[in-house]
Amino acid sequence: MAAKKVLIVHAHQSSGSFNAAAKNAAVEVLTAQGCTVEVSDLYAMGFKATATAEDIKGEVKNADNFCYLEESKLAWEQGKLSDDITKEQSKLTEADLIIFQFPMYWFSVPAILKGWIDRVLTNGFAFSQDKRYSQGVFQDKKAMLSFTTGSLESMFSPTGINGDMNVTLWPLQNGILHYCGFQVLAPQIFWAPSAAAVEDRKSMLESWRTRLQGLLEEKPLSFVPLDCFDEAAFQLKPAVHEKHASEEFGLTVGIHLNKPLPPHSQMKAGC
Amino acid sequence: MAAKKVLIVHAHQSSGSFNAAAKNAAVEVLTAQGCTVEVSDLYAMGFKATATAEDIKGEVKNADNFCYLEESKLAWEQGKLSDDITKEQSKLTEADLIIFQFPMYWFSVPAILKGWIDRVLTNGFAFSQDKRYSQGVFQDKKAMLSFTTGSLESMFSPTGINGDMNVTLWPLQNGILHYCGFQVLAPQIFWAPSAAAVEDRKSMLESWRTRLQGLLEEKPLSFVPLDCFDEAAFQLKPAVHEKHASEEFGLTVGIHLNKPLPPHSQMKAGC
Repeated sequence: MAAKKVLIVHAHQSSGSFNAAAKNAAVEVLTAQGCTVEVSDLYAMGFKATATAEDIKGEVKNADNFCYLEESKLAWEQGKLSDDITKEQSKLTEADLIIFQFPMYWFSVPAILKGWIDRVLTNGFAFSQDKRYSQGVFQDKKAMLSFTTGSLESMFSPTGINGDMNVTLWPLQNGILHYCGFQVLAPQIFWAPSAAAVEDRKSMLESWRTRLQGLLEEKPLSFVPLDCFDEAAFQLKPAVHEKHASEEFGLTVGIHLNKPLPPHSQMKAGC
Repeated sequence: MAAKKVLIVHAHQSSGSFNAAAKNAAVEVLTAQGCTVEVSDLYAMGFKATATAEDIKGEVKNADNFCYLEESKLAWEQGKLSDDITKEQSKLTEADLIIFQFPMYWFSVPAILKGWIDRVLTNGFAFSQDKRYSQGVFQDKKAMLSFTTGSLESMFSPTGINGDMNVTLWPLQNGILHYCGFQVLAPQIFWAPSAAAVEDRKSMLESWRTRLQGLLEEKPLSFVPLDCFDEAAFQLKPAVHEKHASEEFGLTVGIHLNKPLPPHSQMKAGC
């Protein structure tokens, strides 16, 4: 097996944090396996989070009615994106696996990481009308979320106060990672390390180290292939819908066909 | 009825955009009704999106292991939060209704708006262990999302390629707005205005203006009251679970009890 390249996009302010320890574990274990590991430490880099006209070198096309989606696409085509974006795009192009390491803020990624997503996954570079989902630009790459929560696991269940974590993960894993074509590996969720005993935090990191040994061979999560949808309205084709009619569960969290959600489908491969 | 105060948190780069027109319509119609309307125009303000130690005046408590959740709570208690945060918190405290106006980026809010959420909704100010969800700090206030999409409505359905919009809205409406106690009004979704004819964009804005006339009297979306959960593990109480056992649908999108999701529950009141 050829040596793999890994990019870790890391979003915690402190090098003493549990998130930093999880990032360091990934660097160590993957490097020991022969991988080349690059880290984008967003706070340390002072990474710009906001999508503005400053992301484009020179004049924009339509200053009076600036549309980031269009202007950034044009700038990418013309090599006019700002250097910080271009640099991250190069790292992404090189990588076989991208790991996003962050503390969950408000049921999602911290703003600095959302800024990386908004700015680096440029229209044209990371997706296009023709290249999305299972036909996406990055279909030969893998990506995964690795994050800490403030709440206990039981609170993020279908009977818990925060609701099913699979629902919370859908916009991130389907709407960002799978949208760009990535094969999405199961998330690594560190449940409430700040509320855990030192020993338990250690064993969380140990099990992450163990998982990292075989991470690159893991099967990705399941999503619905693009050719199951018609090309006009992007609706599930009648044949697919009918074929699935007698099944107990929906196809995925989002494409649930008004059936119960398939359990754990955003958290475990093969669900 | 006493005059109401409205805060619009606006996140678009251009004053010529459809989002700006939607924001302007809200300012006009609500002002004409006697409301006092304040606008936080995040890009125009150059709003800082990233949650860093600079948000705290003076020394932080634990520089070696900086934890934003804890440090910002302490800074709020001691009046040491940075002025830009304090100013937004004052606006929020004054407001009866908050409207978030933005283009959907990657199945969520743009990073600059996520930054407002991460930084302004400070631990202690906007929530605490005891004050969350239906017992939340802002239970006397209303809040809503008003946003544009790039995709057509049909694509965000339970059989569409992007999946059910109700799923995508759950982390935002439950995990942020309802978490802080807000009564969440149905979202105003402008489906793919950039793909629409001029006449259709006009009629989208007209229907928003019509809705704005009665907005303050609308019933909010339904969520599961906090007292339905036990206080130890925050699990649905057995009595509530049993009472709901014969129902066709789950309680909400997230707290679905492994049943089909209640249709439109994040998009229409009374669902």
